[in-house]
Amino acid sequence: MRIRLFHLQNSRSQRIIWFLEELGLNYELTIKDHSGIDKDKNSPHQLSKFPTIEIIEQGKTSILAETSAILDYLSHLHPQLGPNSLLSQQLQNFYYWKNYSEATFIPDLVLKQIFHQIVKRTPFPVRFIPKFLKYGFDQGYLNQSLQRQMSMIDKHLEHHLWFAGDQFTTADILMWFPLLAFSPNYRQFKHIQRYLAQIENRPAFKNALIKGRWSASTFKAYWTTAW
Amino acid sequence: MRIRLFHLQNSRSQRIIWFLEELGLNYELTIKDHSGIDKDKNSPHQLSKFPTIEIIEQGKTSILAETSAILDYLSHLHPQLGPNSLLSQQLQNFYYWKNYSEATFIPDLVLKQIFHQIVKRTPFPVRFIPKFLKYGFDQGYLNQSLQRQMSMIDKHLEHHLWFAGDQFTTADILMWFPLLAFSPNYRQFKHIQRYLAQIENRPAFKNALIKGRWSASTFKAYWTTAW
Repeated sequence: MRIRLFHLQNSRSQRIIWFLEELGLNYELTIKDHSGIDKDKNSPHQLSKFPTIEIIEQGKTSILAETSAILDYLSHLHPQLGPNSLLSQQLQNFYYWKNYSEATFIPDLVLKQIFHQIVKRTPFPVRFIPKFLKYGFDQGYLNQSLQRQMSMIDKHLEHHLWFAGDQFTTADILMWFPLLAFSPNYRQFKHIQRYLAQIENRPAFKNALIKGRWSASTFKAYWTTAW
Repeated sequence: MRIRLFHLQNSRSQRIIWFLEELGLNYELTIKDHSGIDKDKNSPHQLSKFPTIEIIEQGKTSILAETSAILDYLSHLHPQLGPNSLLSQQLQNFYYWKNYSEATFIPDLVLKQIFHQIVKRTPFPVRFIPKFLKYGFDQGYLNQSLQRQMSMIDKHLEHHLWFAGDQFTTADILMWFPLLAFSPNYRQFKHIQRYLAQIENRPAFKNALIKGRWSASTFKAYWTTAW
């Protein structure tokens, strides 16, 4: 089986590189950056999504998108970071955090960017209008919801080394990206800070940042302005 | 193991009742409706989410939320509708649609409601402002994205009986809810219509609608106005 990964720089697809590095799998990498995204330069998935992998097996090529789907499928074949050795409460933790990341946490992250982009793209003389709506939505719902979520995560990490428990799993790979994007605004949560530092010390994580051409400053600038 | 399900009427948590009915598992059901949601009447999950299950095992109670996490965990224990008997391309289909539902499809559904609710809650004299923004966002991004997604789904269902292939799986349970909410606005997609009719004929699905006190008219009214 040959794997080719279509990766968008500084985006959530960084997690797939990290996963492949943790497992030591061979893969080809095609990197796009935000400036180069147009119809011809997108991923081969029907919705032009990143990350997307091409899997070439016995001369047949298939295409798979969605971060969680890629991790689930590759974990099915290479189960080292999956649920197999987990029991009862750890299994529940694993499934909860893994699904929470993409279904609840990241959609809130995306909402921050959507409102920010609407403000940014509105011509200056009437920009106060979406700004006012963003403010109302942040104050009335989003910020409060995020505060509760970050607090829940911090409480969990106070008593657990990794999200599932004492073992590093794909739940950690999935949670890292939204946590990194939210954490600069929630510096009071010490266990989250400890957790992120712990990830930064993993050799596979470091390699993945280099291979994915990760730019900490670009990432930070992109997420800080959305707050 | 005893299961107690906290279900919110006419919401995505209907899918967990359906799953439990398909498997013929025993469970207790606590039903809330939208009118009764306040701080004291929510689910026992830290984020007050629906669906949430309470699992009571050897005198110990644990709490699990997130539709996909509940399906993943219960499928781990009762694998009949899971990936175990799928091969290669069917496995990829299973993992793709299962994750696409919660991570891409439903967040777009929620965006429709968020903008609609902002319009609804803005005082009448200035309501044209969020209305204008909703229109811009729908035209500039959301409607186009949904059209592409519905078209991709319809194309898939043209060649597949169920989402994974020829077997009914939890990917079908996950996809049903957003498909039902979107489909009245995309009547041109005949394979999606065939698929939804096929689901309505399943005895477990019918039982689940009765037990969950599903109201087709309330559901329809809620989703139609958001368009």
